[in-house]
Amino acid sequence: MNSLSLSHRARKTPPSPIRKLAGLAQQAVERGTHVYRLNIGQPDLLSPVEFVRGVQSYSGSVVAYEGSQGSRELLAQWSEYLNRDYRIGITPEEMLITMGASEALIFAFMVCCDPGDEILIFDPTYANYMGFSAISGTRLVPLPCSLENRFALPRGEEIEPFISPYTRAVLVCNPNNPTGTVCTDDELLMLVDMCHRRGLFLIVDETYREFVYDGRKPRCIFELAPRDEHIIVIDSLSKRFSLCGARIGCMITWHDELMRAAFHIAQARLAAPTIEQEAAAHMLGGIKRRYLDDAISEYSARRDAAIEALAEIKGVVASVPQGGFYLLARLPVLDAELFATFMLTEFSMAGHTTFVAPAAGFYMRHELGKSTIRIAFVLNQQDTREAIRILGEGLAEYSKRHPEQCLSS
Amino acid sequence: MNSLSLSHRARKTPPSPIRKLAGLAQQAVERGTHVYRLNIGQPDLLSPVEFVRGVQSYSGSVVAYEGSQGSRELLAQWSEYLNRDYRIGITPEEMLITMGASEALIFAFMVCCDPGDEILIFDPTYANYMGFSAISGTRLVPLPCSLENRFALPRGEEIEPFISPYTRAVLVCNPNNPTGTVCTDDELLMLVDMCHRRGLFLIVDETYREFVYDGRKPRCIFELAPRDEHIIVIDSLSKRFSLCGARIGCMITWHDELMRAAFHIAQARLAAPTIEQEAAAHMLGGIKRRYLDDAISEYSARRDAAIEALAEIKGVVASVPQGGFYLLARLPVLDAELFATFMLTEFSMAGHTTFVAPAAGFYMRHELGKSTIRIAFVLNQQDTREAIRILGEGLAEYSKRHPEQCLSS
Repeated sequence: MNSLSLSHRARKTPPSPIRKLAGLAQQAVERGTHVYRLNIGQPDLLSPVEFVRGVQSYSGSVVAYEGSQGSRELLAQWSEYLNRDYRIGITPEEMLITMGASEALIFAFMVCCDPGDEILIFDPTYANYMGFSAISGTRLVPLPCSLENRFALPRGEEIEPFISPYTRAVLVCNPNNPTGTVCTDDELLMLVDMCHRRGLFLIVDETYREFVYDGRKPRCIFELAPRDEHIIVIDSLSKRFSLCGARIGCMITWHDELMRAAFHIAQARLAAPTIEQEAAAHMLGGIKRRYLDDAISEYSARRDAAIEALAEIKGVVASVPQGGFYLLARLPVLDAELFATFMLTEFSMAGHTTFVAPAAGFYMRHELGKSTIRIAFVLNQQDTREAIRILGEGLAEYSKRHPEQCLSS
Repeated sequence: MNSLSLSHRARKTPPSPIRKLAGLAQQAVERGTHVYRLNIGQPDLLSPVEFVRGVQSYSGSVVAYEGSQGSRELLAQWSEYLNRDYRIGITPEEMLITMGASEALIFAFMVCCDPGDEILIFDPTYANYMGFSAISGTRLVPLPCSLENRFALPRGEEIEPFISPYTRAVLVCNPNNPTGTVCTDDELLMLVDMCHRRGLFLIVDETYREFVYDGRKPRCIFELAPRDEHIIVIDSLSKRFSLCGARIGCMITWHDELMRAAFHIAQARLAAPTIEQEAAAHMLGGIKRRYLDDAISEYSARRDAAIEALAEIKGVVASVPQGGFYLLARLPVLDAELFATFMLTEFSMAGHTTFVAPAAGFYMRHELGKSTIRIAFVLNQQDTREAIRILGEGLAEYSKRHPEQCLSS
């Protein structure tokens, strides 16, 4: 006789480290505290007016299913954008519209791996990859990267020993969430070469593709490895166009059989939302390049603001992100989650406090991230500075009230 | 060394029998043929103006993530609708907004079952359940129902022998897709009692809840088994409000631990789409009961039209649906998929043809559905009649051109 218990995978799926403390933040707000949210990659940049107008001008009388692959208009516009900016010669055939990059990643995990199969990832990693691994029964194998080495990728000969008979894919997020590291062309080519030699898929999460700084050029991996069947690119409108809530992502692959299998999974869930797809197509058809250029300079300035503000706080070690809009910072505390909780429950400064994500959940080897937080520089420069200043004041107060929780400097 | 092959589950996920022939239908349209689509549950009923106005009045400047559980406004409105119409005493705590009922079902499969675990279903069944089973690695165990018996549920003593040590849940779709059968209260109570005695979850897919005919009263299972922790209800706005493209569904359970686990999975995919949730909350807050009453009478009349039109065709055996908007009809052909393909590729009548879904894909035991089609009566009465008349003409022509494929009458 069965008892009414849950599946192992249900019990294994971790809560999101990004959203774990969201309830405490909500309570702080309800107490009247203003909370600066550096915990989540929810930019405050305005979504393109072309998108909002696309929504407002919706004129359907029946909100019908879209095709399982995505709307024709959106596929046409998205492929055109990729060909214009990256000249990768893509057609809609190689694309599948998904409900955010999240769904594209889940599909990729499922078509590459059976339960028990392995995917190599660089650790620390985007926390939700662990959720997708639990959902799909896939094992993530961490390749260690370190703050001291600016989270650069290990060299090929350091990676290869981690490949086992169960390895099916290598997953890299470029530019990286949570580290801000941007892969060099040589590193990408090394991964492509390795996947060819070892018969692996290479999943490249390019959600933050355009956000690279200090004169770097945005890079789609298909520029380096045209039409390469080993590669699956995960793309998303969420961050690029400040459209996180639209839940529109995309999977790109030239591997026919893989695309067909992903399409069958996509059919089972029917379709991505119609109205957001229509508005997104409307947007991509009309948006000016300036929108992205402005966003890139703005994030670059916010990065500088964040780094400068962090440099003012004693005992904090942070890496300078080369791209994306996150960074990891090690604090002089024993347990960053306790500190983040303190910020939301015990501390405020003139009615303000700062919400950061404890980074342990971004490390496969949790203990390595125990003293670290992830900061998303998604607020305007002034708010970013102010939020980090409050973080510094909070740290000072924490060391007074909870000295046993702090590292001596 | 691995070769670049796909996972077993990728190769096992079946194409949707509903959407399998969609490419052929598209080609027919491109040849200038008008295609009556009885293959898919995409109603032609207008979506509520309250929803469309909710979309058009969208005034956000940043399309931000919603909470992983769903928007507060939508949760409040949805729970109010359930309490008003069914008095089940629900609060938003027991609800999780999902991307269509599809995602709610995937979550339910994942939290109840580990790979290899079993769910009992009634066969024929909603084809996409098989897709969710492939995705989640769950085994569906079919309980046979038959056209001759109007697809009524088997009795308890016929079901129990199918329960194994791996059984985790019973899944019933009520009203049923694809059979149109509506469970009696006694049948539902029998399932509840069995799940209690055997320690199983009872997943009830109530996507078509309101659509019951001939004086039947819509039934939410929580009316019969208040706050029962064994029960997971799957709900959706797609069919009820002709909002298939909005992709807004919901999982309902009083099982705390199960809800927490589903919420963790929901966190990994971040959130359901923001704009559709906002428009749906706007709609539920303002819609008049008349919208649903009108929809119910309209579907009831369409059902009558479909049944009458089918009765005119020699050799066709169909069940009279008590609810939902599908029915199964057995045709005098050896292979209904070949016939459906014929209708899209070889046949037309004054520039019109009819697209039906071969039903083999709705049967776990495919061979039992080989001569059967599923008809969705989602077009207006006149179109439904006309589409079925064309189907009849197509059958006559098919028996001339492909007599070897037809059963003698």
